[in-house]
Amino acid sequence: MKIIDKEILAIDTPRVMADYDIMLANIQMVHNHARRYMIDIKPHVKSHKCLDIARIQLDEGAIGLTAAKCDEAAVFFNGMCKSFTIAYPLVEHHKIQRILSSTKQFGLDMSLIVDSEEGFEAIALMAERQNVKVKIYLKIDVGLKRCGLPADDQRILKLSKKILEHKQLELTGLISHAGHVYRAKNIQEVIKIAQEELKILFSVRKLLLDFDIETRRISIGATPTLLTGIDLQGISEIRPGNYIFLDRLSWKLGLIAPEQIALTVMATVVSKNKSYFIVDAGSKVLSSDTGAHASKILEGYGLAYPAEKYLEEDYRMKITALSEEHGFVSRSGFDLPIGSRVRIIPNHACPVVNLTDSMVVHQKGMIKNVWKVHARGKVL
Amino acid sequence: MKIIDKEILAIDTPRVMADYDIMLANIQMVHNHARRYMIDIKPHVKSHKCLDIARIQLDEGAIGLTAAKCDEAAVFFNGMCKSFTIAYPLVEHHKIQRILSSTKQFGLDMSLIVDSEEGFEAIALMAERQNVKVKIYLKIDVGLKRCGLPADDQRILKLSKKILEHKQLELTGLISHAGHVYRAKNIQEVIKIAQEELKILFSVRKLLLDFDIETRRISIGATPTLLTGIDLQGISEIRPGNYIFLDRLSWKLGLIAPEQIALTVMATVVSKNKSYFIVDAGSKVLSSDTGAHASKILEGYGLAYPAEKYLEEDYRMKITALSEEHGFVSRSGFDLPIGSRVRIIPNHACPVVNLTDSMVVHQKGMIKNVWKVHARGKVL
Repeated sequence: MKIIDKEILAIDTPRVMADYDIMLANIQMVHNHARRYMIDIKPHVKSHKCLDIARIQLDEGAIGLTAAKCDEAAVFFNGMCKSFTIAYPLVEHHKIQRILSSTKQFGLDMSLIVDSEEGFEAIALMAERQNVKVKIYLKIDVGLKRCGLPADDQRILKLSKKILEHKQLELTGLISHAGHVYRAKNIQEVIKIAQEELKILFSVRKLLLDFDIETRRISIGATPTLLTGIDLQGISEIRPGNYIFLDRLSWKLGLIAPEQIALTVMATVVSKNKSYFIVDAGSKVLSSDTGAHASKILEGYGLAYPAEKYLEEDYRMKITALSEEHGFVSRSGFDLPIGSRVRIIPNHACPVVNLTDSMVVHQKGMIKNVWKVHARGKVL
Repeated sequence: MKIIDKEILAIDTPRVMADYDIMLANIQMVHNHARRYMIDIKPHVKSHKCLDIARIQLDEGAIGLTAAKCDEAAVFFNGMCKSFTIAYPLVEHHKIQRILSSTKQFGLDMSLIVDSEEGFEAIALMAERQNVKVKIYLKIDVGLKRCGLPADDQRILKLSKKILEHKQLELTGLISHAGHVYRAKNIQEVIKIAQEELKILFSVRKLLLDFDIETRRISIGATPTLLTGIDLQGISEIRPGNYIFLDRLSWKLGLIAPEQIALTVMATVVSKNKSYFIVDAGSKVLSSDTGAHASKILEGYGLAYPAEKYLEEDYRMKITALSEEHGFVSRSGFDLPIGSRVRIIPNHACPVVNLTDSMVVHQKGMIKNVWKVHARGKVL
């Protein structure tokens, strides 16, 4: 069975495409896993930024949405759901003011995160001024060394107490992101990081319980750890983002088969030389990512196949370099005519979506729709 | 003298900013150099994608504009100038059809490039069908090994003859892009590549002249080669793009002083740990570029300074890693409060502009304007 037919072969390139059926299967796979443990799903919208995909996630049982940026979240304050987490440390009055105004205006169930005294003080002040209830997750660093308090940091207890004592704030629980999992070399390392994450979070919960402080919820979120099918007992919520599309990175980590990758890019051979086919998708379409969180486990900038030979191993070509508007596809023993289409598996799906204004959604080889990337460019 | 004042320190972050005076000085510097050799300037809009900046370039003597993408060029078909080059091999009927329709509709002076039989045939057919005159540059590979015919390729003569024989096509000249200059290690290598480029182009011109084929114009374009102040005798036209902003890469190559960098990003410290200040500009603002054309001469993803200590060497910090919405700024012996601003010099300016919908334009520390990135997202 050919995966694509002439309709998709004829689209103008470069074009970001999402396979509807694969995407739906990916969503259901992860949601079903969560359901087995009776835990909530609050997907991160950063990967799709698209109202249509959020709608599917909610229809498939998500209880709300997560975003990193206030402006990005605001695109989804349209009544489609009420529960939001801004999984990003807000530390400035004006940003908090804005998100809390929306919280009031739309009657949202809003969770924010705290990992510093400064963040706490800013949120506390603005919640008071606006007289609005805010749920607070303490952000715990589980190894990425980005945001979050290390498990042995005394501020965990101190901030927990302060949050508990504050009238407008509710200490909801602990939150983490094991982003360093994207630097793993194989599935064994992914599983180890996933287990370590839970161990750290449970130890912090126990520590707080020793001081009679209950952390009701534990929220984790990183697609690779979830794809290992890890035991999620004791977890309240997951916040995966990338799981809807998947990409070369999750394939390389051994977590998925390439047939599970929903996001690809169609491009055209516009020139060629002894070493390369030159295609019309460069870093302004594929991004220069060689992984996520500056992971460098991937060589090159994606995998390309002649579109009619998509996923046929003998026809796999590496994208060795990128200019802004050109991809250097290394030749692999066969020729391709100028003007022919290649289909590309990106290294990392999320920045690819962020670079386009819309995605072609296809199903069984037919173009089903064109979806806008509604929250693209909302960086504030 | 402080370069920035409180007005800019207070803008919401992350924010891409362009210093008006520096940008104007950069434009004038390169344009003056071209003027000394009486050669045309046809800037590449890919770096700014902005009508306001194109206006300045034209006011400062540019004779037209260059673009890689038809849709990107189309944003500038508004009467501001008539002369355009699509410096990208168009090989598909529908793309050529579209650009030639606009050429007729707006009465444009349109130059296209050819580096293959297929490209020639497609342009020839569509020019005939639409009955429109098109100038053709033969694209020569001067070492990037991307598009273009190598100097010893017999198709150069063959295609030249075909173009000459075609009623609607005019063989305008030779065109090149020495993009491999971005992989140079120092200014000496840049100069060598610049000289080599001219040598190759002059040899092709001579070869064609031996067959009585005159290549009226020679068009080159890459900011670094121009910044060396190289002798441009024999050249007809330059097509620089990045020169308006400049960035860490041209600084690293020894071509400019950091004070000549017009494009910076303001960000905020949102968290910190033992190793890093975490700022709110990640790969969705700075891109993951470690150079241009996959050059890897730069370590990390940009340089950061406390905003009030911008360009003070003792306060320079490296951005060691990027998540999508976070920058990992390596600590450098001093502390910064959470909520404080850092100002970042990006590795590569062009993809940074491509990631934002607008730029804050500042002058003498004051916000002068906010300019839209009009052609952002026009990838077709």
